[in-house]
Amino acid sequence: MPTAAERHAMARARRLGAGVLGSTSPNPAVGAVVLAADGTPVGEGATAPPGGPHAEVRALAEAGDRARGGTVVVTLEPCAHTGRTGPCADALLAAGVSRVVVAVPEPTSPAGGGAARLRAAGVEVVLGVEQAEAEDGALGAWLTGVREQRPQVVWKVAGTLDGRVAAADGSSRWVTGREARAAVHRLRATCDAVLVGSGTALTDDPQLTVRDADGVPAGRQPLRVVLDRRGRLPSDARVLDDAAPTLVSAAAGPRELLAELFARDVRRVLLEGGPTLAAAFLRAGLVDEAVVHLAPKLLGGGASLVGDLGITSIGDALTLSVVDVTRLGGDVGIRLRAYRHTGGSRSAESPAATGGS
Amino acid sequence: MPTAAERHAMARARRLGAGVLGSTSPNPAVGAVVLAADGTPVGEGATAPPGGPHAEVRALAEAGDRARGGTVVVTLEPCAHTGRTGPCADALLAAGVSRVVVAVPEPTSPAGGGAARLRAAGVEVVLGVEQAEAEDGALGAWLTGVREQRPQVVWKVAGTLDGRVAAADGSSRWVTGREARAAVHRLRATCDAVLVGSGTALTDDPQLTVRDADGVPAGRQPLRVVLDRRGRLPSDARVLDDAAPTLVSAAAGPRELLAELFARDVRRVLLEGGPTLAAAFLRAGLVDEAVVHLAPKLLGGGASLVGDLGITSIGDALTLSVVDVTRLGGDVGIRLRAYRHTGGSRSAESPAATGGS
Ligand SMILES: NC(=O)c1ccc[n+]([C@@H]2O[C@H](COP(=O)([O-])OP(=O)(O)OC[C@H]3O[C@@H](n4cnc5c(N)ncnc54)[C@H](OP(=O)(O)O)[C@@H]3O)[C@@H](O)[C@H]2O)c1
Ligand SMILES: NC(=O)c1ccc[n+]([C@@H]2O[C@H](COP(=O)([O-])OP(=O)(O)OC[C@H]3O[C@@H](n4cnc5c(N)ncnc54)[C@H](OP(=O)(O)O)[C@@H]3O)[C@@H](O)[C@H]2O)c1
Repeated sequence: MPTAAERHAMARARRLGAGVLGSTSPNPAVGAVVLAADGTPVGEGATAPPGGPHAEVRALAEAGDRARGGTVVVTLEPCAHTGRTGPCADALLAAGVSRVVVAVPEPTSPAGGGAARLRAAGVEVVLGVEQAEAEDGALGAWLTGVREQRPQVVWKVAGTLDGRVAAADGSSRWVTGREARAAVHRLRATCDAVLVGSGTALTDDPQLTVRDADGVPAGRQPLRVVLDRRGRLPSDARVLDDAAPTLVSAAAGPRELLAELFARDVRRVLLEGGPTLAAAFLRAGLVDEAVVHLAPKLLGGGASLVGDLGITSIGDALTLSVVDVTRLGGDVGIRLRAYRHTGGSRSAESPAATGGS
Repeated sequence: MPTAAERHAMARARRLGAGVLGSTSPNPAVGAVVLAADGTPVGEGATAPPGGPHAEVRALAEAGDRARGGTVVVTLEPCAHTGRTGPCADALLAAGVSRVVVAVPEPTSPAGGGAARLRAAGVEVVLGVEQAEAEDGALGAWLTGVREQRPQVVWKVAGTLDGRVAAADGSSRWVTGREARAAVHRLRATCDAVLVGSGTALTDDPQLTVRDADGVPAGRQPLRVVLDRRGRLPSDARVLDDAAPTLVSAAAGPRELLAELFARDVRRVLLEGGPTLAAAFLRAGLVDEAVVHLAPKLLGGGASLVGDLGITSIGDALTLSVVDVTRLGGDVGIRLRAYRHTGGSRSAESPAATGGS
């Protein structure tokens, strides 16, 4: 069983992993904390960009000698294979740690994870500590890739209270305020790719880069992707400028596009619009998370948040579960996850059909 | 300036007033707390139903002798007129209080409020303490009546994330879950009347009573109102049962209906549906508050939260301001207030048109 200090370190490790989400693909965004023998945190680290050191190795480097006899708390089971960086299990043994606390066991090769090697060398290994929290956090992108051979898809949409993304005349700037739009830029930074359909590219001509409040572009930019099967994107579209790489794809559908992106090491995609493409992904069951920004506005008409889903009855509604709700300036941000029908502690309660109006 | 104990008592007084909202009309839902000379709370009260004692009188009764030399903290300036219950100012003088702390000054007859009489008798009176909070709270209904000669209107709607109140086939039970529906019953209990259009009465055949989680009706029921200009409501509609009084009105529009209700002493109306009637009230500028319950569901079609508002451009969107956001089981509840263009500390920030997508 993990100690209180280890649980605290695990929460910190999750945050460290989240801090590098978007910069590690195709590798997982892992976080690690080293506790000295007396339980004091003496080092921490997160996965470096591909080719750089893994989280444990960085945390051990910071801890130095103080790791000896201590504990490493890490969101993913240390690797045992020799990749570009050498196995982490060996680094842990070399540092002389006596205990390793892990959230998510290595899902790719159960026999080949680092736990077996560590245990064989006399290190105590605890697996599965706060596993669900880690899986729902920064590791979700990489795990989706391992399990489904496709990137994780986060659908972001900004609408009015009555579910409109644009007014009747097509105008949509701005539905939400400054804080919500800044949150979108932070969200983009956690993704490997940002995707729109040709409809949005033509109507809004977005640049789709990550910028700060002053409009200064971030150093690392996600791949911009436009799904444009009929070649309607004009050559002077802003998304084609040199501020970031861009892929114009003619993939037949969401699944084909995700395969194309996966092959390019994309593990987390932000689906940014519009209703047509969102509906295509939702109908295909290819939305893992949703970020809905609602402005306290009413339009009474205009384009809907999402196009036709082929649903006619309330009982067949596509149901998500709310992860959290925040205020973003004058707007409301709702984070949701695809409703999981099977498994686990996190299944959402289904609404009881009791009472009356 | 109010002391810390007086501020604390004022917050309690607001809650006491809120606790009787829905049972006092046409009188205001006032709350009062008596502090002894040493600052200890020794009595509290709220407005009784019409004909019963006012908040201060009830609080003084509880305090008894301990009120002498003490302070009365009350959300509305004590009355000086002799109504069914005798002026509160006299009761305060009789009790020997030395100080009275008031949130909202009497708005009807500036010269005739109790403050002048109290001061003339040597009692210290402080007016306007946390006035905005009190006005936005339980006093809002009565104040709307005083200022606009109409009841306060609270629009309640339950929809999906994509702004649908019913699916394409008309089914709408249940959009939201148990907790959200229970919250609607608590909200109904704070209102003097609950209103639907004939459309909702015909489609959903709601009973529109206040019931607890077990379906047991509350002792006091708001007036049920159906706006039915063409006499389409069938005589066996549930809203016509004997569980509560019902008014079927053929008023020409929202303003005419509100006048009719105001004449019947209604000071707070819950507008419960549907998109057509909601749009009529919103277009007329007759919605003061909104309670939106959003289920984490997507339908991609079906009836919208609100009908045509005559708005074509995003810049003309009807804008409210968010008061608070809560989780209601699996659903999200958003309370909003009509955006105030003029006046005061509570004007919502307008979204800055900076940045880009
Ligand atoms: N508020 C927001 O968050 C937000 C975000 C984005 C957009 N919007 C608004 O949404 C509106 C644009 O809506 P939209 O629905 O036209 O944009 P969209 O969904 O981005 O683009 C739709 C286009 O994508 C192409 N596409 C490629 N593969 C597809 C597939 N498998 N399934 C469906 N479509 C595919 C189709 O054109 P081809 O057949 O030519 O490929 C289709 O016409 C604008 O008013 C914009 O302002 C709002
Ligand atoms: N989820 C929710 O919170 C919720 C709540 C309520 C309803 N709903 C859904 O909404 C749907 C019903 O929508 P609805 O729009 O037909 O219902 P509605 O707005 O309740 O009723 C509309 C009717 O009200 C009458 N009316 C009277 N005075 C009016 C005026 N001044 N302006 C406009 N209408 C006036 C009109 O009929 P006359 O001309 O004959 O008078 C009109 O057809 C149902 O599917 C129901 O399930 C959902």
